[in-house]
Amino acid sequence: MEFSWRSRVYWEDTDGGGVVYYANYLKFMERARTEWLRALGHSQQELAEQFGFVFAVVEVQVNYRRPARLDDEIVISCVPVPEGRASIRFRQVITRSDGAGGDTTLAEGEVRVACVDAKSFRPRPLPDFVKVSHGK
Amino acid sequence: MEFSWRSRVYWEDTDGGGVVYYANYLKFMERARTEWLRALGHSQQELAEQFGFVFAVVEVQVNYRRPARLDDEIVISCVPVPEGRASIRFRQVITRSDGAGGDTTLAEGEVRVACVDAKSFRPRPLPDFVKVSHGK
Amino acid sequence: MEFSWRSRVYWEDTDGGGVVYYANYLKFMERARTEWLRALGHSQQELAEQFGFVFAVVEVQVNYRRPARLDDEIVISCVPVPEGRASIRFRQVITRSDGAGGDTTLAEGEVRVACVDAKSFRPRPLPDFVKVSHGK
Amino acid sequence: MEFSWRSRVYWEDTDGGGVVYYANYLKFMERARTEWLRALGHSQQELAEQFGFVFAVVEVQVNYRRPARLDDEIVISCVPVPEGRASIRFRQVITRSDGAGGDTTLAEGEVRVACVDAKSFRPRPLPDFVKVSHGK
Repeated sequence: MEFSWRSRVYWEDTDGGGVVYYANYLKFMERARTEWLRALGHSQQELAEQFGFVFAVVEVQVNYRRPARLDDEIVISCVPVPEGRASIRFRQVITRSDGAGGDTTLAEGEVRVACVDAKSFRPRPLPDFVKVSHGK
Repeated sequence: MEFSWRSRVYWEDTDGGGVVYYANYLKFMERARTEWLRALGHSQQELAEQFGFVFAVVEVQVNYRRPARLDDEIVISCVPVPEGRASIRFRQVITRSDGAGGDTTLAEGEVRVACVDAKSFRPRPLPDFVKVSHGK
Repeated sequence: MEFSWRSRVYWEDTDGGGVVYYANYLKFMERARTEWLRALGHSQQELAEQFGFVFAVVEVQVNYRRPARLDDEIVISCVPVPEGRASIRFRQVITRSDGAGGDTTLAEGEVRVACVDAKSFRPRPLPDFVKVSHGK
Repeated sequence: MEFSWRSRVYWEDTDGGGVVYYANYLKFMERARTEWLRALGHSQQELAEQFGFVFAVVEVQVNYRRPARLDDEIVISCVPVPEGRASIRFRQVITRSDGAGGDTTLAEGEVRVACVDAKSFRPRPLPDFVKVSHGK
């Protein structure tokens, strides 16, 4: 059930401390969630236009373990777990190869997204393909 | 006709080189244009919702003179000049006090925005308040 | 002990959903922490250069209550609470006036920052001015 | 001599207008320049640490032709042309497949970067590998 996505750290992601700015880890996490969805055959654009709903983040929790740096190639994993009828909790970990066959954890956390109407922002039941992908 | 807006440099604006990331100067320039509009009594949200048009950037040119750094308080000026029936060229300068009564120019450039329909993105004539503010 | 800072939502902060992008709330929270520090007479630049330490975020938790939108004027509060010898936990709330004398909570959360050496990123005891500001 | 790099548009890149925020095209352009350098066998981190210089942007000019949208897969090209002893002018084009075998130009422009000392920010002669890659 784990999906992972590879990404690169560019100047745009770093800050004056020489490491990735703390808010930007959330961008990397979102890329992995978007690509997980795409791997299931769906784009967020299409979900909004054809089905009238979007995934809205309602809660985020992140622990920063080691700084990611310019030029790092990082891997962002996500494990989606349906929670209730209208939301998904993603467990997400960002790692970097340690150059010796292992991985160094840079950040890990959880992101809960709610399935909401694209206009009213009211909750809507999760689409079936999410539940199916979770083996239910 | 010159309008200026004060802003502060935060960590989010800097990159690993210890200075403001080059794309972020465009954010500061946009803040000044938005505040110029607000000073005329209009918000972009309102223009889009009530009048159905937005200002879309069609051309940007920036010269970077000196780096802006963390904690700098900068001043962004804009001088709007209508160009044709449906666009405005903003001349914009970003400065920082040199601590001796003068200003250091950090960046300067021009941003041309077109007045376009919020949905079709087709050109629309500039609203009157822009021409009026320019004394025409 | 509560400090608060006012900020404006610009185009740069929004995403295609028409609301502030979820990672950008962390930028607003960081601005308030930086201004809290400045109100105590210190800049982060100075702390790094003169004292050799920086504040590194080690943990973030945010609940998103209502979306912030373009042109919103928001207020970001922070209540710093020292935790252990080398870190501070900031409780932070982002609100918007509801236009009727009250405030709407848009997001709230906690950010734990560690005081670390600017080069080695190893933990360092909190400076006295933080403890003093907390009345200890 | 043309180098190109493929990238994807995520929520983080869009703004409330439903298209990519104008400053973010500069991020995509910078990714292509960084990958061009990497294709030559060099990283910016390494250049800064081992050789003590960085590439600083001194001038940007961009024409925005068509908006890039969420989920678009875009291609960013760069053609580096040495200019003087200490700078490179990159001609850059961002395109998207039109789905019929052709490409739609979304933005095009030029970015001039100077080779500067990583600490003093003073100009330094371009490294040989840049001239060599340009066939001189």
